[in-house]
Amino acid sequence: MAAFNEQYPPDFPDERGLALISDIVDWQINHGSLLKHIDPETDFPDDPSQCYPVGVTVFPTLFPREQFNRACELQTIYNELYCAMAEDEHWIFQAIRDLIPVDPLAAALWGIHEEVKKVGYAQKVSVGIFRSDYMLDAPEMEFPLRPGDTFDGALKQVELNTFSCAGATHANRAAEMHRYFARTNAYDPGVDHSINVSLAALPRNNNITSLSACLAAAHNAYGPKKSSAATDTAVLFVVQPNNFNIADERPLEYALWDRDPPVPTYRVDYPTDFLKYTTLTESRELLFHPPWLGSKCVEISVAYMRAGYEAHEYDAAGKEARLRIELSTAIKCPSLLAHICTFKKVQCALTTPGAVEHFISPEKAALIRSTFVCMYPLDDSEAGACARRLATDPELSRDYILKPSLEGGGHNIFGEDIPDFLASIPESKWAAYILMECIRSPSVSNVLLSSTGLDSGGVISELGIFGTCLWRKGSEGQHCEMLQSSVGGWSFKTKHEDVNEMSVVKGYGCFDTPLLF
Amino acid sequence: MAAFNEQYPPDFPDERGLALISDIVDWQINHGSLLKHIDPETDFPDDPSQCYPVGVTVFPTLFPREQFNRACELQTIYNELYCAMAEDEHWIFQAIRDLIPVDPLAAALWGIHEEVKKVGYAQKVSVGIFRSDYMLDAPEMEFPLRPGDTFDGALKQVELNTFSCAGATHANRAAEMHRYFARTNAYDPGVDHSINVSLAALPRNNNITSLSACLAAAHNAYGPKKSSAATDTAVLFVVQPNNFNIADERPLEYALWDRDPPVPTYRVDYPTDFLKYTTLTESRELLFHPPWLGSKCVEISVAYMRAGYEAHEYDAAGKEARLRIELSTAIKCPSLLAHICTFKKVQCALTTPGAVEHFISPEKAALIRSTFVCMYPLDDSEAGACARRLATDPELSRDYILKPSLEGGGHNIFGEDIPDFLASIPESKWAAYILMECIRSPSVSNVLLSSTGLDSGGVISELGIFGTCLWRKGSEGQHCEMLQSSVGGWSFKTKHEDVNEMSVVKGYGCFDTPLLF
Repeated sequence: MAAFNEQYPPDFPDERGLALISDIVDWQINHGSLLKHIDPETDFPDDPSQCYPVGVTVFPTLFPREQFNRACELQTIYNELYCAMAEDEHWIFQAIRDLIPVDPLAAALWGIHEEVKKVGYAQKVSVGIFRSDYMLDAPEMEFPLRPGDTFDGALKQVELNTFSCAGATHANRAAEMHRYFARTNAYDPGVDHSINVSLAALPRNNNITSLSACLAAAHNAYGPKKSSAATDTAVLFVVQPNNFNIADERPLEYALWDRDPPVPTYRVDYPTDFLKYTTLTESRELLFHPPWLGSKCVEISVAYMRAGYEAHEYDAAGKEARLRIELSTAIKCPSLLAHICTFKKVQCALTTPGAVEHFISPEKAALIRSTFVCMYPLDDSEAGACARRLATDPELSRDYILKPSLEGGGHNIFGEDIPDFLASIPESKWAAYILMECIRSPSVSNVLLSSTGLDSGGVISELGIFGTCLWRKGSEGQHCEMLQSSVGGWSFKTKHEDVNEMSVVKGYGCFDTPLLF
Repeated sequence: MAAFNEQYPPDFPDERGLALISDIVDWQINHGSLLKHIDPETDFPDDPSQCYPVGVTVFPTLFPREQFNRACELQTIYNELYCAMAEDEHWIFQAIRDLIPVDPLAAALWGIHEEVKKVGYAQKVSVGIFRSDYMLDAPEMEFPLRPGDTFDGALKQVELNTFSCAGATHANRAAEMHRYFARTNAYDPGVDHSINVSLAALPRNNNITSLSACLAAAHNAYGPKKSSAATDTAVLFVVQPNNFNIADERPLEYALWDRDPPVPTYRVDYPTDFLKYTTLTESRELLFHPPWLGSKCVEISVAYMRAGYEAHEYDAAGKEARLRIELSTAIKCPSLLAHICTFKKVQCALTTPGAVEHFISPEKAALIRSTFVCMYPLDDSEAGACARRLATDPELSRDYILKPSLEGGGHNIFGEDIPDFLASIPESKWAAYILMECIRSPSVSNVLLSSTGLDSGGVISELGIFGTCLWRKGSEGQHCEMLQSSVGGWSFKTKHEDVNEMSVVKGYGCFDTPLLF
């Protein structure tokens, strides 16, 4: 337990601050806490001069221990809920039917689903790597949150990601990094103060181990190869070409190869290389035979999706590639319907009365509901009418965020900007958006270090909890049979309080470790 | 054992080759196999956009297993020899007396030694991290060396480094990298060939573990703190400012902190910060109290030198800093006299009759001598006269290298260039050089990947063996008492056969792993 009775973080003299920053950068270079700069102009496939540290906080950021533990505890319930949802096609369709005409990604995915249904899905087992993101909500609380304050607020969910969840490795590294500096007394302000960033206040993070263990479990669940053309089974990472975030993905591959026995793991760019180097057998095994495996041909046990979350990826080739994956016997991480559950429309539909209760027990549902903020669709329903009134009024809209049904947070419209934005687009497109109540996080102090430089001041954090699960489609009357479910680990990202967007790539958000109090 | 009966390395089609290179770059980014680009123009202390992969070979390079094992076996004898030499001030002085008037580094170091002697050395224990570099010598062998060939040649020593030996971590990473790609079948050319880069043919490397263990042993040998002003004892890495090679040094710090119990380890820039942040107590304990330790003050148990190997570092401040280190009770890695043993003049003096035998048994001396090539001083001795005749004749000089008595290989003059070079400098400066017989390595094929791009063709490798040792100055009649001596690990660097210089930093040399046959 950290003992606080002084200013946090400590105000180091310049010389000490610069030494710490230099130590941090060196630590990052030595531990793959990096992003790769991709320059499409360069001929050379990987211009070796191009990598730089990912944004991190200089100090760990204060966060209430009780809320951290609560978020972790909720994750197995969220796993149960989303696995059940992912097997309820009818419910999902009701949640997104208005979206299909206005959202190309929704249309593409539902189209592929319909296509697969014609012949039927060939695999009943699915694997999920989910991340539920939370912020602290404490509108009544006096700002800023100081050490020693009792946190009098709630944990509210920002979103639940079911697809291509990023940041697990970076978060793992950031936790190791802040723990390293705590262990080496780099945060110790000296005897005149009594603030102590102790190891006990910095939770461990085991994302790399747990996420790779979950993919390995799925690989084992697939069983031996079925095709005589294949030499072996293997996990396939389906990735975006020219990926800048290889330091987040690759360690999961390395961890799979490092297991005993090793889990063979390969990667392929989506969709072009995927289409070129895979085939479906008659019995729909997915075979992978790229030139870099020589004359080898592997049967894919698990397709781990780290691509295919943006609408532009679903041109004709993208649709064909995704269809091939979904048609195959490979276990998908995640299944197509689980992917669709990541849409904001689905999150919004869950907040309606009875929705959560449709899938899980009332006791569990109540716990889940306590993390919800108000969300509204912008449709013709009663809730929609209310939402329109809120969203078109400059005064009332101040407390809301308008979110498109897209992955990530890069396209949100905030508060007073909402009425003008809605006025600028045809009303027929409003159904692609949901209106969500703002979460008012207490501000704490920290120093952010990113490619844009150093930035001190009030910051706000977002806690993500990784959930991993393996489930089988249920028989009649049962949504799904959970084969394995656990809390993977966490991510903790922090940004300047005046910036709305939590984008690590753009240099706004920084990977962080909660300093629990 | 690798089975070779085909071309090595395999000639991959472009698409496969590019995929492998992309995989290598990603592996390097994820494992700290990087160099930091230091731009002195930048204000920001560590421009975060600046790091890039260190040069590595795409494939491991063929090397005879017998010679690799032989080099490892020789290292404990080399440890014994150099520890004994380092305690024989008289012998060292005879070896370098001609150098002092013409070589500023030798003059500076000897001057500091004389200064310390006035009050006496305060520490009898020293620690050494040495690296003995070898090349294969096979002048009669038909080139290139092909898999399946029996190696009919000898292992010859290029030099023995006693000071600031670099490359241990990079070599460790390169070994892990090539083993990773072997394990994941990335080198497997398919069923049409039978070349197999098996794990059994790629030796493991434990440099990081063994070098940090050796520093930890020295730290323990120092014992508890003596000064009441200090809170603790700690290892101090004395480093060059604006260091591009932090990925080689830092992992040793991390490994020391990671030990159980942790060995506190700090670093300081030499000489300015060192002078600012250290003091000697009356009883000559070395105290370290930089602003980044707050009000903490540590007593230095071990000063690990990764700076102070270049003449320009010995201005007034540099001399004062080194003097403070040498005066102190800290265990030096290495001692000043051990540092001087790295001079080429000392290496040359060892080749004279009776020199090696002065320190070790005739049996051991014979093994050591078998690794020597002919070396000559350019002085007034009989050997010197011979050397002058060889070095000034364009025909005869072809088989020789002229080496200044400096650390590293960046200032050598090769073969036919020697006569003109010697003619261009005053004869009084010739004593700063030694003439060394060329080592004629058999050429093998590989592909080099560095910041300058890709380069395929004939390559030549240099094998370095790390030796770690801890010794106490002997009493009368005994040079030294060895407390601990072991083979640390190895480094293996490979360059294009047409390039004389083995400089990884300039992009000529690449870290590599021997593929033993």
